[in-house]
Amino acid sequence: MPILKVEMLSGRTKEQKRELAKALTAEMARVTGNKPGTIQVIFAETSSANWATGGILLDEQEH
Amino acid sequence: MPILKVEMLSGRTKEQKRELAKALTAEMARVTGNKPGTIQVIFAETSSANWATGGILLDEQEH
Amino acid sequence: MPILKVEMLSGRTKEQKRELAKALTAEMARVTGNKPGTIQVIFAETSSANWATGGILLDEQEH
Amino acid sequence: MPILKVEMLSGRTKEQKRELAKALTAEMARVTGNKPGTIQVIFAETSSANWATGGILLDEQEH
Amino acid sequence: MPILKVEMLSGRTKEQKRELAKALTAEMARVTGNKPGTIQVIFAETSSANWATGGILLDEQEH
Amino acid sequence: MPILKVEMLSGRTKEQKRELAKALTAEMARVTGNKPGTIQVIFAETSSANWATGGILLDEQEH
Repeated sequence: MPILKVEMLSGRTKEQKRELAKALTAEMARVTGNKPGTIQVIFAETSSANWATGGILLDEQEH
Repeated sequence: MPILKVEMLSGRTKEQKRELAKALTAEMARVTGNKPGTIQVIFAETSSANWATGGILLDEQEH
Repeated sequence: MPILKVEMLSGRTKEQKRELAKALTAEMARVTGNKPGTIQVIFAETSSANWATGGILLDEQEH
Repeated sequence: MPILKVEMLSGRTKEQKRELAKALTAEMARVTGNKPGTIQVIFAETSSANWATGGILLDEQEH
Repeated sequence: MPILKVEMLSGRTKEQKRELAKALTAEMARVTGNKPGTIQVIFAETSSANWATGGILLDEQEH
Repeated sequence: MPILKVEMLSGRTKEQKRELAKALTAEMARVTGNKPGTIQVIFAETSSANWATGGILLDEQEH
């Protein structure tokens, strides 16, 4: 049943997503007892032009 | 008032989305009594590279 | 795969939710070809004290 | 802590998003007392082909 | 059209929500040109027992 | 930055939520390199009366 919606900045690699899907599902299954097959992970990627903290868009912040 | 957010894999055709918008709105109006004009349907399309079940990204599962 | 998130005001009856779950799933399956068992419907109920249109909370609007 | 998710049609300009991020964060901070740095604004842009009101996709409505 | 989903900790007062609904709608209308009546604000309140930062539930953090 | 929204059935214990917050944050930090303090986990609990699979509300399914 559980659905993990991961809101994150665009730009993660294929390997990172593969590993995240595996690891987040494994931890969810371990702690809740849900079968892995019932767990969904959805990556919602947002560009830094569409995400702001402190009132400033991330792509306009000095890093 | 009601907002139907439809999380689904990318790739549905224009006809499917047209029909889904019509059918889901009609059923929502029929059952709740809300006027169709007050019902919103939003399709949130996600690629199979960003959706995992059982810890495996859909675009890496054997079908 | 599809997940239908239904944002609606609190207060629907058990019968309405039962009928909505059935009808929305049936229409989704009909139009997309997804098997009903792969379709999830989640009702996110919000009170009129937490929902505003036109800048006014619904429980403070004259109807 | 607060996260403002803004679901809106695609097509806003960079200036509009910059101003929205600033203004929404400022109002949130003013009213709740949260420090601006703890407030996140995320723009979820949806095309008019993926948004329907009254059962009709916005890009197929006569305006 | 725009929908502002405000994820925040439970506990805001009625006055704060009234003022937030008004202010967020006014700023959205000012910047985007959307009519206020087309703008929805939904407060999604979450308890500190269901929200974590840094891996620790907020109601278990020393403040 | 990342926000993990966990949609799950109501009923998890305090210990499970504590462990989930810790484990999901740790895995997210390990794989993405984000500092744990920048990672938020939000549990969105839904009752079995508000969640359906296969068109049937979970609290009306024979288990």
